[in-house]
Amino acid sequence: MEEVNNKFVSIKDHVNGSPNESDFEIKTETISLSVRSKEVIVKNLYVSVDPYQLNRMKSHSSSQAAISFATAITPGCAIDTYGVGRVVASGRPDLAKDELVVGLLTWGEYTLVEEGRLLNKLDPMRLPLPLHVGALGFSGLSAYGGFFEICKPKKGESVFVSAASGSVGSLVGQYAKLFGCRVIGCAGTQQKVDLLKEKLGFDDAFNYKDETNLKSALKRYFPEGIDIYFDNVGGEMLEAAVANMNLFGRVAVCGAISEYTGNQKRAALEMLDVVYKRITIQGFLAADYIERYADFISTTTDLLRSSKMQALCDISHGVESVPCAFIGLFRGDNIGKKIVQIADE
Amino acid sequence: MEEVNNKFVSIKDHVNGSPNESDFEIKTETISLSVRSKEVIVKNLYVSVDPYQLNRMKSHSSSQAAISFATAITPGCAIDTYGVGRVVASGRPDLAKDELVVGLLTWGEYTLVEEGRLLNKLDPMRLPLPLHVGALGFSGLSAYGGFFEICKPKKGESVFVSAASGSVGSLVGQYAKLFGCRVIGCAGTQQKVDLLKEKLGFDDAFNYKDETNLKSALKRYFPEGIDIYFDNVGGEMLEAAVANMNLFGRVAVCGAISEYTGNQKRAALEMLDVVYKRITIQGFLAADYIERYADFISTTTDLLRSSKMQALCDISHGVESVPCAFIGLFRGDNIGKKIVQIADE
Repeated sequence: MEEVNNKFVSIKDHVNGSPNESDFEIKTETISLSVRSKEVIVKNLYVSVDPYQLNRMKSHSSSQAAISFATAITPGCAIDTYGVGRVVASGRPDLAKDELVVGLLTWGEYTLVEEGRLLNKLDPMRLPLPLHVGALGFSGLSAYGGFFEICKPKKGESVFVSAASGSVGSLVGQYAKLFGCRVIGCAGTQQKVDLLKEKLGFDDAFNYKDETNLKSALKRYFPEGIDIYFDNVGGEMLEAAVANMNLFGRVAVCGAISEYTGNQKRAALEMLDVVYKRITIQGFLAADYIERYADFISTTTDLLRSSKMQALCDISHGVESVPCAFIGLFRGDNIGKKIVQIADE
Repeated sequence: MEEVNNKFVSIKDHVNGSPNESDFEIKTETISLSVRSKEVIVKNLYVSVDPYQLNRMKSHSSSQAAISFATAITPGCAIDTYGVGRVVASGRPDLAKDELVVGLLTWGEYTLVEEGRLLNKLDPMRLPLPLHVGALGFSGLSAYGGFFEICKPKKGESVFVSAASGSVGSLVGQYAKLFGCRVIGCAGTQQKVDLLKEKLGFDDAFNYKDETNLKSALKRYFPEGIDIYFDNVGGEMLEAAVANMNLFGRVAVCGAISEYTGNQKRAALEMLDVVYKRITIQGFLAADYIERYADFISTTTDLLRSSKMQALCDISHGVESVPCAFIGLFRGDNIGKKIVQIADE
């Protein structure tokens, strides 16, 4: 076999607003297996599907912010994403054929990984491969770095997590509980709420869609105020959280999914609260905590192996299911980390 | 003389929205000079007039935030404020009659300072008394603590200051210049803009009222982005600053005067900017930096004495002028620290 046929997902044009099936197409290409030095061809097994990709799909005029700081996705081209795969052909001395790897792959069946692009040998450490895409990947690092470095928790503090059953939120809540905080999460279905309370050990949880007034809902769930808000959604929930924060409260802004599609209004914060309560609101990216990566992996591997931490994976199958999986993120279809299994292990 | 007549300013009712002369009245009371132990009666000389007082005048329903964290002002009662005065009668062994004092006085001719209320002996250190109300008072501490502790400046960084000719902004800009930053300020008149550039040493300054689009104005003044924004105004200027911030930029939220009267819209921040640029937005109060008070006083006294720093004072005269001076703050009438001289030294 000298070449492989590769089916991959691409966008037909820039996507502004909520994504639809018609924004995507499955393309086919041929990849030669005679790799150049330092190049690797990977057969993708599990790939990550994350909301932030939408920001990379926007046209420049639509979101200056996202496009200036994230690499734009080019219509017609393969879309990079974090994932786990197996080496098919290698021009790197450290990676042999058939070895498991983790790094920046694509929403496709195969990835031609050029020199310099993130790709490391994967030791699965007796843990299922999807965990290496989610809880032990960038979602996990976002949760770990964001919670410990940005939120600067103290034992006994009250933590609120939005999108709490999502890829990052579900881990933040568990890190916070294990650390000794009181944790309440919100999600968008009763099933998710039950899961948070029954499986993930949250002290409480609620369905934000059942609440007519988020500010009073939070007042009810946090009668003594919120010390830490781990924000995955932005918009009205962020406003409501700020209104309910305690003195010297901290908001870690991990994402703002409610604002990505441009349908929801932006958070209009009460700056008087920010001043009088000395609130800190801080944005971050997982990549900022790469120097804590070894800590993160060793801590999280132990927690997962001993079942002290649950990693929720929501897995679809086949490259054709990627657009639907992605679109579903913005409807809240996923429970935990959304992953597409591209091929059998 | 066993008692003094005291004229003082009070509000007739809670003030929501922009303040008007009719919201205030001058009342008269008699204060007995036979003080109890630990009490002091002070003849007020210079008193501070600050925008934040408006937040204390609101009814509870109008601003939960302000009222929960600042002591509410009661209609009909004296209004406390920072100021300099002279002891008329003292029940404190550390304070003798005729000594100069600084602390929490009132918008009135005399203040009965109860036990426990902030009042210290004042050594004017050969500096004019109004400076002890402003640059060496809470305005100065806000500027010093906010700039050095919240903004965490590095030499060569670009600093933007709003309300830059105001009591705090004018000092922040000078601390920043002296520290080695590039500083640009905005203000609301050409006269103020000239003052910033010609007297206070700002690298540049502009009149925000001349700008139709604040975001592009800041892009013009900071083609390489803003590292630090010292925010005194909130609202649209905060939005525009966040849009123009550099990676790891810091916003110190000292005040939000554009939002105090409830006329202007709140800042609706682009959270994508906050995330991707890892921006930190942090509220603070001068009182948080009381442990740096000695540093602050010694540094600032030296700078003022050597004329390396200019303290702008905008002084009105007589207790009756307090309401007008206060109302003027929200029209931008003041240049520098607004002070009312209540009596001759």
